[in-house]
Amino acid sequence: MKQSQLFTKTLKEAPKEELSINAKLLTRGGYIDKLMTGVYSYLPLGLLVLKNIEGIIREEMQKVGGQEVFLPALLPKEPWQKTDRWKFPEMFKIENRSGKEFSLGWTHEEIITPLVQKFVQSYKDLPVYVYQFQDKFRDELRSKSGLLRGVEFMMKDLYSFHLDEKELDNFYSEMTKAYFKIFKRCGLEKETFLTLASGGAFTKYSHEFQTVTPFGEDEIYLCPKCKIAVNKEIIKEENNQCPKCKSNKLEVKKSIEVGNIFKLKDRFTKAFDFKVKDEKGKEKELLMGCYGIGLGRLMGSIVEIHNDEKGIIWPEEIAPFEFHLIPIGEKDIFKRAEKIYQDLQEQGIKVLYDDREKSIGEKFADADLIGIPNRLVISKDTLSNNSLELKKRANNKISLVKIDQIKKI
Amino acid sequence: MKQSQLFTKTLKEAPKEELSINAKLLTRGGYIDKLMTGVYSYLPLGLLVLKNIEGIIREEMQKVGGQEVFLPALLPKEPWQKTDRWKFPEMFKIENRSGKEFSLGWTHEEIITPLVQKFVQSYKDLPVYVYQFQDKFRDELRSKSGLLRGVEFMMKDLYSFHLDEKELDNFYSEMTKAYFKIFKRCGLEKETFLTLASGGAFTKYSHEFQTVTPFGEDEIYLCPKCKIAVNKEIIKEENNQCPKCKSNKLEVKKSIEVGNIFKLKDRFTKAFDFKVKDEKGKEKELLMGCYGIGLGRLMGSIVEIHNDEKGIIWPEEIAPFEFHLIPIGEKDIFKRAEKIYQDLQEQGIKVLYDDREKSIGEKFADADLIGIPNRLVISKDTLSNNSLELKKRANNKISLVKIDQIKKI
Repeated sequence: MKQSQLFTKTLKEAPKEELSINAKLLTRGGYIDKLMTGVYSYLPLGLLVLKNIEGIIREEMQKVGGQEVFLPALLPKEPWQKTDRWKFPEMFKIENRSGKEFSLGWTHEEIITPLVQKFVQSYKDLPVYVYQFQDKFRDELRSKSGLLRGVEFMMKDLYSFHLDEKELDNFYSEMTKAYFKIFKRCGLEKETFLTLASGGAFTKYSHEFQTVTPFGEDEIYLCPKCKIAVNKEIIKEENNQCPKCKSNKLEVKKSIEVGNIFKLKDRFTKAFDFKVKDEKGKEKELLMGCYGIGLGRLMGSIVEIHNDEKGIIWPEEIAPFEFHLIPIGEKDIFKRAEKIYQDLQEQGIKVLYDDREKSIGEKFADADLIGIPNRLVISKDTLSNNSLELKKRANNKISLVKIDQIKKI
Repeated sequence: MKQSQLFTKTLKEAPKEELSINAKLLTRGGYIDKLMTGVYSYLPLGLLVLKNIEGIIREEMQKVGGQEVFLPALLPKEPWQKTDRWKFPEMFKIENRSGKEFSLGWTHEEIITPLVQKFVQSYKDLPVYVYQFQDKFRDELRSKSGLLRGVEFMMKDLYSFHLDEKELDNFYSEMTKAYFKIFKRCGLEKETFLTLASGGAFTKYSHEFQTVTPFGEDEIYLCPKCKIAVNKEIIKEENNQCPKCKSNKLEVKKSIEVGNIFKLKDRFTKAFDFKVKDEKGKEKELLMGCYGIGLGRLMGSIVEIHNDEKGIIWPEEIAPFEFHLIPIGEKDIFKRAEKIYQDLQEQGIKVLYDDREKSIGEKFADADLIGIPNRLVISKDTLSNNSLELKKRANNKISLVKIDQIKKI
């Protein structure tokens, strides 16, 4: 993409009301725009990042056998009454002109369970794993911290249906691994910990994936030895001990919840009377699990972790582009840059080409703020070596690369 | 994909309340599921089709220079008050726990205009074309006809911003061409006509793209010579004549509106006081155009046009898979089929592999209902020729193809 054609621009200052690093840098970089509290628009660069995250999650969900669907956001009242969740305080309620009541989806157990029930009639049809990417809505009283806590936010939610507990347990641990793969690809591996959390009505505990960052809204008690943690809400129940090694040498850390998985067991299948016959012809209520990741929250968390005083430092797989190509000099240099840009495009390499008439200082500052992993500078000097100057955003390492070698970086 | 792993199943009968061909066939084929009036879930096969349509539209929007964004669905009240559209009867209104009012997006002029205004300061930043794919919501009193008229529906909406009328006119006609390319790729070329329609408050006329089908909700007056049409609402204004050749030999046809483009002119830029300086330093209000396509409606229209008594007949680019591979016979045949399936997958060819234990009759009936363009049957007979039997869904033509030639079909 040519940078001159982007309708957005970088901003020198973030809006004053934005306090979090992610909101400040993503707004300044032209990634997002705040429409109102907890509700953001994704601008062209921001949507590219969001789509990269979506792509990673989709790949990992397909590897575990997930089938993608797309459920509505506008939902009828009746299924929420069946599960006694119509009273959920964060649920937006809405009425049409005829006075009929609806909700805006904040989760989809009430929709997916009767949907799967329509098709699954026997143990032979099991297990089933269904997921979607869809905007969720929550009437949050205190929405702040940029993308970290939204009123409207893009989520991946997967629901699994099983005949027995062992199968649920197996899949649950498979999903735990899949989640760590996702966080690894998103550059959050080192900072993200499986965390015991309160399980609500369904099971004793659920699991959160908490990413340690000084600006997190949560607090976890981390066992540095076992690399697992306990959520603040239940640390007392756990006697201030690591649930694995029982050590009480836990570190208290600020953190962000980047994912959450639950064993729902028969909480919803019971409400919808969802039973199938097992191999012996005996009717059994199905067991369910659910597995959520907020995409915007993940994007915000990545920025909270990967930044410096100059701007964002995107991990390779997340970045909106692989290369940021910047020509320095006169028209002939721009001509060469244009040619290199076209060549790279044709090879399927994602390049942001800074063809703007700006000073070198402005271009470099923008490049650091936007945070594409590889900055390629083309100038008279570099061309005299038939090369470009490559600067890695992550470690500022500079090297010369031959033009025909760029695609292999 | 292996058909045994699809959690959905085909249905012998469509639900009685579904009257339209698209709802009947898409429900029976396992593409969509009705959650409530005007609100459908997209099941795995249906989402593949929706994504193909999205892909086609995205390609054509990028070709005309469109920049993709993703705007929220939950919208603040204030901008609708500025444009005097808070009163729009089809708009869902919603209140949070603090009593603050919001709307659910049914269109996004009120959001995109102030957003673009933040970044566009001079004539040098123009023109700008911004688009998105996002669910829209309309409080329809009479939602029927399956995907043809939704309460919640996926739309692509593009908004263009221009300095002068000539530039707007040029882009408007470029978009007209882009829309016809989209309809062509969706298999609706022959049946779709540019149609004069009432322009509301902004200009005398807008343009609809109407697809002729016996089950359409609209009525158009078509000039068979000029291949353009006039909407029922304004045919009297046009003196029952073709707007081009002035012939009054017009054919009355039932049709579906599959797209709609408007010159908004300064309707919204005026409301938001969106001006920039032109080359001579003179302040000018910007002019806008908007360009919508409903993806679900398009999907429904394709089915309305492309079907027979056995089921759907997907156009090549729209189909969820290119091939439907069906083994007939014993285990060794399934083994060969599995191998061919894996080979095709590795070549990036999209195959639905019917690995289910069903009768030949059931498999063929499902294949016809689901409507994948190329049915490949593998049996002892075909294998004795080192071949597979290819049946084209569109014309029932049967031929034998060598196994190593499949990818070249």
